[in-house]
Amino acid sequence: MTYHPATTALLLVDPYNDFLSEGGKVWPRVKTIAEEVKLLDHLRALVRVARDKGHKIYFVPHHRWEPGDYVNWRHPTPYQLGAAKRETFAKGTWGGTFHDDFQPQPGDIVAHEHWGSSGFANTDLDLQLKQFGISRVILVGMIANTCIEATGRFAAELGYHVTLVTDATAAFSPEAMHAAHTVNGPTYAHAITTTEALIAELADGGKHEDQEISGRESELLHSK
Amino acid sequence: MTYHPATTALLLVDPYNDFLSEGGKVWPRVKTIAEEVKLLDHLRALVRVARDKGHKIYFVPHHRWEPGDYVNWRHPTPYQLGAAKRETFAKGTWGGTFHDDFQPQPGDIVAHEHWGSSGFANTDLDLQLKQFGISRVILVGMIANTCIEATGRFAAELGYHVTLVTDATAAFSPEAMHAAHTVNGPTYAHAITTTEALIAELADGGKHEDQEISGRESELLHSK
Amino acid sequence: MTYHPATTALLLVDPYNDFLSEGGKVWPRVKTIAEEVKLLDHLRALVRVARDKGHKIYFVPHHRWEPGDYVNWRHPTPYQLGAAKRETFAKGTWGGTFHDDFQPQPGDIVAHEHWGSSGFANTDLDLQLKQFGISRVILVGMIANTCIEATGRFAAELGYHVTLVTDATAAFSPEAMHAAHTVNGPTYAHAITTTEALIAELADGGKHEDQEISGRESELLHSK
Amino acid sequence: MTYHPATTALLLVDPYNDFLSEGGKVWPRVKTIAEEVKLLDHLRALVRVARDKGHKIYFVPHHRWEPGDYVNWRHPTPYQLGAAKRETFAKGTWGGTFHDDFQPQPGDIVAHEHWGSSGFANTDLDLQLKQFGISRVILVGMIANTCIEATGRFAAELGYHVTLVTDATAAFSPEAMHAAHTVNGPTYAHAITTTEALIAELADGGKHEDQEISGRESELLHSK
Repeated sequence: MTYHPATTALLLVDPYNDFLSEGGKVWPRVKTIAEEVKLLDHLRALVRVARDKGHKIYFVPHHRWEPGDYVNWRHPTPYQLGAAKRETFAKGTWGGTFHDDFQPQPGDIVAHEHWGSSGFANTDLDLQLKQFGISRVILVGMIANTCIEATGRFAAELGYHVTLVTDATAAFSPEAMHAAHTVNGPTYAHAITTTEALIAELADGGKHEDQEISGRESELLHSK
Repeated sequence: MTYHPATTALLLVDPYNDFLSEGGKVWPRVKTIAEEVKLLDHLRALVRVARDKGHKIYFVPHHRWEPGDYVNWRHPTPYQLGAAKRETFAKGTWGGTFHDDFQPQPGDIVAHEHWGSSGFANTDLDLQLKQFGISRVILVGMIANTCIEATGRFAAELGYHVTLVTDATAAFSPEAMHAAHTVNGPTYAHAITTTEALIAELADGGKHEDQEISGRESELLHSK
Repeated sequence: MTYHPATTALLLVDPYNDFLSEGGKVWPRVKTIAEEVKLLDHLRALVRVARDKGHKIYFVPHHRWEPGDYVNWRHPTPYQLGAAKRETFAKGTWGGTFHDDFQPQPGDIVAHEHWGSSGFANTDLDLQLKQFGISRVILVGMIANTCIEATGRFAAELGYHVTLVTDATAAFSPEAMHAAHTVNGPTYAHAITTTEALIAELADGGKHEDQEISGRESELLHSK
Repeated sequence: MTYHPATTALLLVDPYNDFLSEGGKVWPRVKTIAEEVKLLDHLRALVRVARDKGHKIYFVPHHRWEPGDYVNWRHPTPYQLGAAKRETFAKGTWGGTFHDDFQPQPGDIVAHEHWGSSGFANTDLDLQLKQFGISRVILVGMIANTCIEATGRFAAELGYHVTLVTDATAAFSPEAMHAAHTVNGPTYAHAITTTEALIAELADGGKHEDQEISGRESELLHSK
């Protein structure tokens, strides 16, 4: 399995300070695993390599909380209400700002903010991927069993090739990581890999893809 | 939390013989848990009570396999290809037929077949729910961490109130059940309950809902 | 046909200065019809009555142009490229700002910006309607045969009751108005009315709706 | 603008006997225009050339009417109810069967039936296009200002390149054809052409596409 820059994008999910930075509201709950897997180093490395190799980068941001959110909604989830109570990712605050090392650059896409967990639900992410010819997505960021998993499940339903990177994400507990990557991931993802293995493949530039991609995609890539 | 029959439907996901019957292709892999939680008894009880109380029943069926499926698809998932190889839910076979105890009755809705795990993806389920005024869904059937979870995650993103029933579903392993109901369920579902508790609530007919539903829904229910 | 405030919202499509104000970029092309149908007066009247009667107001805004938009998109439409060339609704300009008389108030919803013509495509409009229990939409604003028609067609496909108001919109030509309201409207809309008739119905507050709404909705409204 | 077989599909919308055959329920209303534009000859020619050149063919069928349809739906459109009353495309009847000259062949895709006018709404059409790498759709069949236009509008919103063929469709009136192709088509379609011109382009096999396709698509086609 390989990743051609013309068809593969890196999706950076919710790189907010509240998730990724010392002092962030959710950081204390993810810190143990984030440090254990070297999350920040891996995100930095993947973004750098993806840029170097010409992969499109998509920011997939959660809705930034504002006063009034969810008031009078019929069916906000308890999880949404909990985040709202804590004012996670509050608009205009440092916590609701992207981490310094993950700032959009010219040519990057910032999708509409998502209200739930899936970056595709109620946003323009599918359109923005299609308009750049992207059919394969690499999902990194936060949190493994919520936004990453939901975005990955939606991506697969929408016809995308989905890659999970087990040490470029984190979660509240080891069992949540296990659920995301060992129990559920194999039921919808096309590849579950590590940062190191993925970087080797990206560096390879899609050279061997001919042997592995199927049908029409191959025809498309070779047409001329 | 309560369930008014005018707004709450029971979604019966993939009640195929291959999943639920002795002799079915997947039954051996789910049998242990299915028997442990008394899955069949609970599904029968829930369907009976739901019908008695006037709840709409939706069948949410997986695509029934046919020769040619997934051939030349660019990105079928390994999971889809595995099921295709085993010809799970093959069209025209007993395994791809609904279990005798779960046959659509007049007035029931049978949604379009889904290709992946979510009953909402690429189907008319959302439309069919809206057209009957349903805004709350109770998800039962198979499998807890794949089709039930994917359908539930999509339902929540689409604005539905989502109820999971921990002993009216099954999975391949206890850890998959745990992932579905303890790790992930609380991140998107509005209620996670048992068959017994749910039946008590359904029997209650939504009598106490006034105290608990919010905002506009209450206004709507009381308008006149 | 009537309009209960608990279930009916007013959707104000693209009320930008570029469309509605003297000096706006597109105003010269719609001015003749807008003045003929008394568009501005009618929009003001409808918004006022809708607020008075407790109807939810939704702003349904087109994407505001920014440098870089559509660059390297595979399939921008010629229509999108034309608007981009003219920098219609440019972000941060007066033309890309809502008309003074149509400013969001507390409690109003501003949906995600749409890239094409439909307010539902690639946005959170469907979710935001569902979360407030809205199942009927009244479409007003600009332009009759593009954004209003596209939004109406999508609304009908999604299961909403759709009302068009022939003199609360405008277009580039009389034949475009005719196409929108006489040729196409009847193929997807549930009601095609005038501002005067609609205001009479809204004033009526849904009093007679019992005689006309169907099935489950009636049951829902009368439940208790 | 050209049409590479690896990325361009022919979408055959609603080729039912009720629409296309002498004796069909709707045929009397479309016959005048259908004969004037030589609809049947053009559809046959386009399907033949598309197959010869290796283009994927998609059947995009309207829901076939069955007893019980729309009963108790909250918001069926008057147009849907009219068709239901006439039992247009009734399941199991000749009228609800594809015309003899337009029968699916091995390798063709038959999308889920659509309930309204858009072949994309509540169906698997988008997924089925993505899974074969299709990003350009040529829309032919019935009816110009309803199902063809709705499918085209949705396709454009979803990021597809959309081609309309003015003499490979028909409608109830000349003004409906005019609305579809002259008033509305240019606001969302990428190309509006004739059967003759299109066949010349298809015969050309995408040879000149290099000059005209943009950005990433070009890169993708030339990658290797």
